[in-house]
Amino acid sequence: MSSAPPPDRLATPLPREFARIAQHFRPLAGPGALDLLDDAAVLAPPAGRELVVAADAMVGGVHFLPDDPPDLVARKLLRTNLSDLAAMGADPLGYLLTVSVPADTPEAWFAAFTAGLAQDQREFGIPLLGGDSTSTPGPVGLSLTILGTVAPGAAVRRAGARAGDLLCVTGTIGDGALGLLAARGELADPDGFLRDRYRLPRPRLGIARPGLVHAALDVSDGLVQDVGHLCRAAGLAVEIEAAAVPRSPAARAAGEASLPRILAGGDDYELAMAVPPDALAALRGAAGAVPVTPIGRFLPGPAEVTVRAADGTPMPLATHGWSHF
Amino acid sequence: MSSAPPPDRLATPLPREFARIAQHFRPLAGPGALDLLDDAAVLAPPAGRELVVAADAMVGGVHFLPDDPPDLVARKLLRTNLSDLAAMGADPLGYLLTVSVPADTPEAWFAAFTAGLAQDQREFGIPLLGGDSTSTPGPVGLSLTILGTVAPGAAVRRAGARAGDLLCVTGTIGDGALGLLAARGELADPDGFLRDRYRLPRPRLGIARPGLVHAALDVSDGLVQDVGHLCRAAGLAVEIEAAAVPRSPAARAAGEASLPRILAGGDDYELAMAVPPDALAALRGAAGAVPVTPIGRFLPGPAEVTVRAADGTPMPLATHGWSHF
Repeated sequence: MSSAPPPDRLATPLPREFARIAQHFRPLAGPGALDLLDDAAVLAPPAGRELVVAADAMVGGVHFLPDDPPDLVARKLLRTNLSDLAAMGADPLGYLLTVSVPADTPEAWFAAFTAGLAQDQREFGIPLLGGDSTSTPGPVGLSLTILGTVAPGAAVRRAGARAGDLLCVTGTIGDGALGLLAARGELADPDGFLRDRYRLPRPRLGIARPGLVHAALDVSDGLVQDVGHLCRAAGLAVEIEAAAVPRSPAARAAGEASLPRILAGGDDYELAMAVPPDALAALRGAAGAVPVTPIGRFLPGPAEVTVRAADGTPMPLATHGWSHF
Repeated sequence: MSSAPPPDRLATPLPREFARIAQHFRPLAGPGALDLLDDAAVLAPPAGRELVVAADAMVGGVHFLPDDPPDLVARKLLRTNLSDLAAMGADPLGYLLTVSVPADTPEAWFAAFTAGLAQDQREFGIPLLGGDSTSTPGPVGLSLTILGTVAPGAAVRRAGARAGDLLCVTGTIGDGALGLLAARGELADPDGFLRDRYRLPRPRLGIARPGLVHAALDVSDGLVQDVGHLCRAAGLAVEIEAAAVPRSPAARAAGEASLPRILAGGDDYELAMAVPPDALAALRGAAGAVPVTPIGRFLPGPAEVTVRAADGTPMPLATHGWSHF
């Protein structure tokens, strides 16, 4: 480790990449991660459980803004993946992370980024299991794989909605999409509520349980588009009452003109669930402080989403959701 | 799915992102992947086995050349991760993949990329379990998480080498680093052997077993640097005989001046193992057609790597390996 090794013996200096892993990422590592010193992590899967695994990527300038604080970027990345587990009714186990950053990324970026991870690891009780860090000539590129578990056969699927089920959502819809506008300075957001909702999703873990819901997903790409997935998976139609879609006071303050963006914008990370009417009370009990709101109903018919205005007429929507391509 | 939905009812057209997943990625999906239609994959971990998980990222212009064929890029990504499992003595189970590509990436790129994955899924008997695709304003960014299993307690670690153990490597060393030069047109490579070795690692699965080796890793960042990890983990010195390091005929043809690059260049994806001398014959039997070559010995002393020339004198090396930062 000497910077001037004796000429007759090679020291083996650790490049900066390893020092960075040791300083910033090793404190995040769980027991199975073997201190991030090995080629892989080793863990005993919880007995009698099935594994649930998902991966999401985020790119600077696409999924977050260049001036978003690194700790919030890290937490959003972790939380979007936790939201996938929430949609499946799974409990989180741990995660792997790959980070590609420009070569001149300052240490302070890594310190803030990993501080955000540490905060949410504590909040959600999960460790880092492994990963990789590389340089890139492009913007920051992040990829996270989350591991979770469910009781055998208990994973909640997108398929399974039945005619007559209520379409219910957790929390409020549209804050993420309006928060992106607010973060860009295109929408008033006096107390920063909307921007916070865009930057920091709340994964709704522990709510979607197989005895209480027939199907679920997390709303990440826009309510109408994502509910369309539930329709197609079930071969059913859905009618949504626009007036029933729960909006935060800040979203209501944005006015009725914002409704199309609320219905089709992304970044909600709330759950959309097919709920048998007689299970709604129990589901609300399971959700505790998180509101669960019926916004429509699954009906026999072609796999289509209809959004009805307060007078019952179908609302035209220019877009249904977000696509990367 | 109509491009002109009737005005009184919203169709739910699938964006191009979903069509691409359906066309190119769904055929790669294993049973647990739920046809890539859900938020996560669900799988029953093999009974009585521990999980082994690792993740690696690759970035265009850093880990592969912009004109490298997409199918070979995909296979290299999968194989570098399989190499991590090989180093742990684990058997592969499946993988998750995130792909960030420019918005104007042609369909042919996806077709070639996934054809490469399909080829190696067949070769190594593993399915795609899930993932994500996004756009990026930068170069192609790829991240892959591999899942594997080992018998409980049977994972081979980087720590564990004992004084007196042989340092052994599989295959030949340095072809990857020389292959990068060849791919750049900076080194003659008449039959393309070196470039092929750079582009397509051979993960050495099934060789490193706990009864046969005390420690192992895969040589990805340069032989001297990576062997340094084995030294530090064991608190032992290693002496490498330069003349014993196995070189391919193509690497020998590059001349003795290439030796420093062979010893410190990356992209070998061969195994470096601490082998008790009386296990060498059995290890060679386990390796079958893959050569296993002793190149040095672990000794009491400070955790340093010494490379000795044919006359026994220590060789100075300007660099020991590759770092991204």
